[in-house]
Amino acid sequence: MIKKIGFIGLGIMGNPMATNLIGAGYQVTGYDIDEKALNAMVEKGAAQASSPKEAAGSADAIITMVPDDPIAERVATGKDGALEGMRKGTILVDMSTISPSTAMRIAEKLEENGMEMLDAPVSGGDVGAMEGTLSIMVGGKKEIFDRMLPVLEKMGKNVNHVGDHGAGQVAKDANQIIVALTIEAVAEALIFAKKSGVDPKRVRDALMGGFAQSRVLDLHGQRMLDWNFEPGGRVRLHKKDTEIAMSMAKELGMYLPGTSLVSQLWNTVAAHGGLDWDHSSLVKVLELMSETEVRPG
Amino acid sequence: MIKKIGFIGLGIMGNPMATNLIGAGYQVTGYDIDEKALNAMVEKGAAQASSPKEAAGSADAIITMVPDDPIAERVATGKDGALEGMRKGTILVDMSTISPSTAMRIAEKLEENGMEMLDAPVSGGDVGAMEGTLSIMVGGKKEIFDRMLPVLEKMGKNVNHVGDHGAGQVAKDANQIIVALTIEAVAEALIFAKKSGVDPKRVRDALMGGFAQSRVLDLHGQRMLDWNFEPGGRVRLHKKDTEIAMSMAKELGMYLPGTSLVSQLWNTVAAHGGLDWDHSSLVKVLELMSETEVRPG
Repeated sequence: MIKKIGFIGLGIMGNPMATNLIGAGYQVTGYDIDEKALNAMVEKGAAQASSPKEAAGSADAIITMVPDDPIAERVATGKDGALEGMRKGTILVDMSTISPSTAMRIAEKLEENGMEMLDAPVSGGDVGAMEGTLSIMVGGKKEIFDRMLPVLEKMGKNVNHVGDHGAGQVAKDANQIIVALTIEAVAEALIFAKKSGVDPKRVRDALMGGFAQSRVLDLHGQRMLDWNFEPGGRVRLHKKDTEIAMSMAKELGMYLPGTSLVSQLWNTVAAHGGLDWDHSSLVKVLELMSETEVRPG
Repeated sequence: MIKKIGFIGLGIMGNPMATNLIGAGYQVTGYDIDEKALNAMVEKGAAQASSPKEAAGSADAIITMVPDDPIAERVATGKDGALEGMRKGTILVDMSTISPSTAMRIAEKLEENGMEMLDAPVSGGDVGAMEGTLSIMVGGKKEIFDRMLPVLEKMGKNVNHVGDHGAGQVAKDANQIIVALTIEAVAEALIFAKKSGVDPKRVRDALMGGFAQSRVLDLHGQRMLDWNFEPGGRVRLHKKDTEIAMSMAKELGMYLPGTSLVSQLWNTVAAHGGLDWDHSSLVKVLELMSETEVRPG
């Protein structure tokens, strides 16, 4: 039975996720490099650790939720990392979005030392984290997944075991490919309507009930019409995800022309200062290149 | 009150749509260039006309449902077309998918002669036509839309007035842009999973509850996994729709790079004999170019 959890990375996502675990009765020991983030967690009832190693020391399972590959690898298997504090047989669950190859490398190192690993990236953003409704895509051994499932279900409502080590990250990147291209799809349709002299809002409304229906048309279509590019999902992170896909495409011989296109369009958003805009701001490239705006008026 | 309807074009779509009107108590006079299609409609209770002009003769409203721009224009305003038989003040509703500019030209000619016109293309395919659940996107005058609404609601459940003449066709093409790019999105994600060594079926299942959710992921994702490319929505027609969009992009100065990409990929499907395959066969281009198949085993 898992009772004590070390939680490493207490930012916009980690904080509400750890809060949900505390609310469900788990004893959480937190660590974050940012003292303010750590203190915010202590106020919510977490114990405080001074390193990933210390957070892992007395834990039955360790969760990491950090921004990128180098940090994920460092807090897991680097100096003063979780591995140095973990007891044999305990589980590290990395819920960050990183490349499948880094996830596999961390898993290999942990297993060599008698520990277990799952990669379990999430979809659903800070709202999903707060509401405990994240989608969680999990790679690793099925029996380890089964042991962690009760914990994961405190943070998400759609928790799936997809395959072996790295498979969770592959599913997450597949998710990001679809979301990126669907944002592009909705953006092109709204530009098309506007330039053709038809109200993009009425077109979106008409399309919602039909074959073009998607979560992206619903949420991001509305953002584009409102010209509301407050994140939400940041361009910076989605750009990283499509770049991981393109790097794997190069390595494994995949033809992903739509992903390649959007991966380049993010560069244009970045050139206009948009790395921290919502990813629906992809529409701004089309607006720029078509000399129009989809917002009304 | 509209009671008598002339229905021109009684194919895969027109037949079930006219059948629903007969079922709702309308008197339908049918015309089709194909005698078999016409006889099938007579068996269902329609009266028989020998030309679009004759079908329009005693009707309160005329519906046309034909394959392309030249035919839509000919049956409406050509020799022996509906216009020659229509009484002043009656309405022609073209429910075919054609270009907005052709729709506007037909409307202009009808209005010059004292008749009314709506463009009202549909989404939902033959299944939607049979079940009476089509999405119908309507362009034209609001008061004419209001007069036709009771009739349209016998054929669809999601009937929207989008704007002036041609706006229905613009909305339909916007719909087709989104569906095409979303098919590409799902295809790339499944290829990505397969080449990365993860079961595409499990990835699709894991993604269904999250941000990547769409009707296309649900229906076409399943078709790709089943390698079931029986239409459904034919490449031939969807290719025509994205080509209309690209032609308007050229005319109006729009940057639609995703639509342009898919428009080219249809050419590859066509080169492999796929014009009458389901449009989810877009995945086959990626399979060809990536030397893989997404179906299991």
